[in-house]
Amino acid sequence: MNQQSIAQSLFSVTAASRQYDDAIEHKINQKTKPLGALGQLESLAKQIARVQYSRESELSHILLNRTESAVTESSQSSTHLPLYINKPTMLVFAADHGIAAYGVSIAPSEVTTQMVHNFIYGGAAINVFCRQVGFALEVIDCGILQPLATDSGVVNQRLGEGTQAMHLQPAMSLAQVRQGFEFAKLLVKRHVDNGTSMIALGEMGIGNTSAAAALMAAVLNLDVDLCVGRGTGIDDATLTKKVTLINQAIDLHRNEFTSIESILAHLGGFEIVQMTGAILAAAEQKILVVIDGFIATAAALVALKLAPQSHDYLVFAHESHEQGHQLMLQALQATPLLSLGLRLGEGTGAALALPLIQGAVNFYNQMASFDDAGVNNVV
Amino acid sequence: MNQQSIAQSLFSVTAASRQYDDAIEHKINQKTKPLGALGQLESLAKQIARVQYSRESELSHILLNRTESAVTESSQSSTHLPLYINKPTMLVFAADHGIAAYGVSIAPSEVTTQMVHNFIYGGAAINVFCRQVGFALEVIDCGILQPLATDSGVVNQRLGEGTQAMHLQPAMSLAQVRQGFEFAKLLVKRHVDNGTSMIALGEMGIGNTSAAAALMAAVLNLDVDLCVGRGTGIDDATLTKKVTLINQAIDLHRNEFTSIESILAHLGGFEIVQMTGAILAAAEQKILVVIDGFIATAAALVALKLAPQSHDYLVFAHESHEQGHQLMLQALQATPLLSLGLRLGEGTGAALALPLIQGAVNFYNQMASFDDAGVNNVV
Repeated sequence: MNQQSIAQSLFSVTAASRQYDDAIEHKINQKTKPLGALGQLESLAKQIARVQYSRESELSHILLNRTESAVTESSQSSTHLPLYINKPTMLVFAADHGIAAYGVSIAPSEVTTQMVHNFIYGGAAINVFCRQVGFALEVIDCGILQPLATDSGVVNQRLGEGTQAMHLQPAMSLAQVRQGFEFAKLLVKRHVDNGTSMIALGEMGIGNTSAAAALMAAVLNLDVDLCVGRGTGIDDATLTKKVTLINQAIDLHRNEFTSIESILAHLGGFEIVQMTGAILAAAEQKILVVIDGFIATAAALVALKLAPQSHDYLVFAHESHEQGHQLMLQALQATPLLSLGLRLGEGTGAALALPLIQGAVNFYNQMASFDDAGVNNVV
Repeated sequence: MNQQSIAQSLFSVTAASRQYDDAIEHKINQKTKPLGALGQLESLAKQIARVQYSRESELSHILLNRTESAVTESSQSSTHLPLYINKPTMLVFAADHGIAAYGVSIAPSEVTTQMVHNFIYGGAAINVFCRQVGFALEVIDCGILQPLATDSGVVNQRLGEGTQAMHLQPAMSLAQVRQGFEFAKLLVKRHVDNGTSMIALGEMGIGNTSAAAALMAAVLNLDVDLCVGRGTGIDDATLTKKVTLINQAIDLHRNEFTSIESILAHLGGFEIVQMTGAILAAAEQKILVVIDGFIATAAALVALKLAPQSHDYLVFAHESHEQGHQLMLQALQATPLLSLGLRLGEGTGAALALPLIQGAVNFYNQMASFDDAGVNNVV
C-alpha cells in the first residue's frame, strides 16, 4: 500500500495558475493609492484573483467541448471579471477525544456536546460572529460521545463515539481516516454545487489541542514542549500531564509512523481528519478555504504534507494565543490576517477575518484607477 | 495666556466611570467560552461598555431634574443594557502642507485635491471600505490649496490655503489652532446630536507624514530619524531631505515651544489640528473615536497631552507600515486591533477595524451565558 494512497486516491489537487499574475498585479497597481499601500490586503486580493481565474479557466475548459468561441472570449477577459465571495460557509467539525478522560483539559468531554447544543440554539461565539459577517454556519458531528437526535440540524458524519486514548492505542484506524476524507469530500462538493465559493473551518472538541499538538510534534519532528499550550486555560500541573501523555503517545506509536496518514490515524481526531479532507477537497475544487486557529492549522499542516499545492487555496485567518500556533504558522510560511490573542476555537478567528477578505475583494473590484479618477500616477 | 488655554477653554473632558467595571467583567466571564478566550475583543468590549454606561449615566443625571425614579432604575440596570454602534461616521480631514513644495513626498500637492474629488466620486479605498462596513463618510476641507465648489458635498472648515512651510515659518497661528478646534467641536456635536455613537478619523494631505513626524519628535522629544518614514513610498534621497527639513523646522521654532498647542501651531497641519479637536470633542461627548494610522495617531498624541482622560474613548485601529507608528503607539500604551502593513491613510485602517468593534459589541450582547446554555462552567 502506497504511503499516501488514501488522499491520492480521493483528491486531485493542482496548483492555481500563475498565467494571470501580471495582469492581476497591473490592475492592483493602477488603483488610486501608493504602490503596495494596502499591504496584506493586496497579497490576499492577488491570491483570490489567481484562484478564481484558475477556477473559471478550468470550468471554461470543461465547457470547451460545447462552445469554443465562448471560452476564448472568457479566457481573454478573465482579469476583468470581478472577484466574489458567494455563500461563504463556516463548517464547524465536532468530535470527542479519548485522551480527554485522562486530565488534559479544564473541561470534561460532555462540554463538547453541550457546546454543540449551544451552536444549535445560536448562543455561542461562532453563532454571533457568523450572523454578523454573513457566514452560513453548518455543524458536523464527526464523532462526539453521544449521538444527537436525527432532527438536530447537525450533519451526521460520525466516525465513532470519540477517538481512542492515543497514549494507550491508536486514536483511530486508517479505514476511519479514509471514511473521514470521503465524508469531507462529499460535504465540500455539496456546498460547491450549491454555489459556495469559500469555506471556513472551525471545530469543537474537548481534548483536541492535545491531538493537534501531537500531530504538530510528530509531523514537524519537534519537541512536544514547543507544541503544547494551555488550551482552554489549564494550570501548570495539567500542562505537565498533557506533555507527558502526548510524549507517551508519540513514543508508543513512533514505529508505525510510515506515512502522514498513519500519523494522522494514530494521533489525530475525527474532526481533524475531516478538516484535513475538507482542505484537500476545497483545493481540488479550487475554492478558498479559511483556516481558523491551532486545531485547523494542524489539519492544514497534514493536508499540505499530503498535497503541497493546497497552499494556494488557504487563507490563514489569525494567530491564536495558543503556544505552538505561531511556530506552526511559520513552518507553513503562513501570514495570518489577525492577531487578537484569541484562543476560543469554533472558527471564531476565521469568521472575524471574513470582512478583511471581503475588503480585498472589494478594493480589487471597486476602486478607481488613476486614469478613471484623474489622479496623478506618481509611482 | 495659560499654556493649554485653548483646549481647556473649549473642551471639558472627564474619564469614563469605573463603577460598572465589576459588573461588566462578570457579564463577560459568564459567556460560554473559556475565561479570556476572546482576547483583545474582551478588553474592547469592556472599554465600550464603560464608555457607554458612563455616557448613559451622565445623560441620566441631566434627566434627574425631571424624573428621579426613572434615573434610579436606569442606573441599576445599566449593565444589562445592550452596547450599540449607532450611525458610525468616518470623518476624513483634508489639507495641504507648505513643506510639500520642498520635495518631501512622491506626489505634488495637487494630488490632495485630486483625491478629494476621488472621495466625492466614490472611487477611493476609503469609499470602498466605508460602503462595505457601514461607515457614513464625510469629507472635511480643512484647507486644501484650491477651494472646492460650494455644492461639492465636502464640508468647508478651511483654515487657509495650505499651511506655511514649517521649516521656514510657523505652519499656522494659535488663532488658526483655536478656529480648528472650534470647527471640530461643532462638527462632532452635529453628529452626536444626529445620533452618532462612534466616529473614526482619517485624512488626506500630501506632506502630512512630515507634519506628523515633526509633532511626534517634538512632543515625545525623540530624534527625528526615529519618527520619519517613507510615507507614500519615497526613496533614500527624499527621505534624507525629509529628515533634514523636519530637523530644520524643529530647530527654527524650538524656543517657541511653550505649550503643546504652540508645538501644534508651529509644526502641525490643518487636518491634524481638526483631528485633535475632534478627539477632544468625542471625549467630551463620551463617545468612541477610532484612530486610523500615523497621522491620526499624531493627533491623538497631541490630544492626550492636552487631556489625558481622552484615552478612555480612543480605539486604535491598526499599526501601519509607516516607521514611527509602532513607536508612537507604544508611547501611547495603545494596542491596535489590526496589523496588515497598511500605509494608505484616508481612514482605511479604521474602516477595516469596524467589524472587529462590532464583534466586541455583538458577543457582549448576544452570547449565551453558561446558565442560559446549560454548559458546565469549568473556569
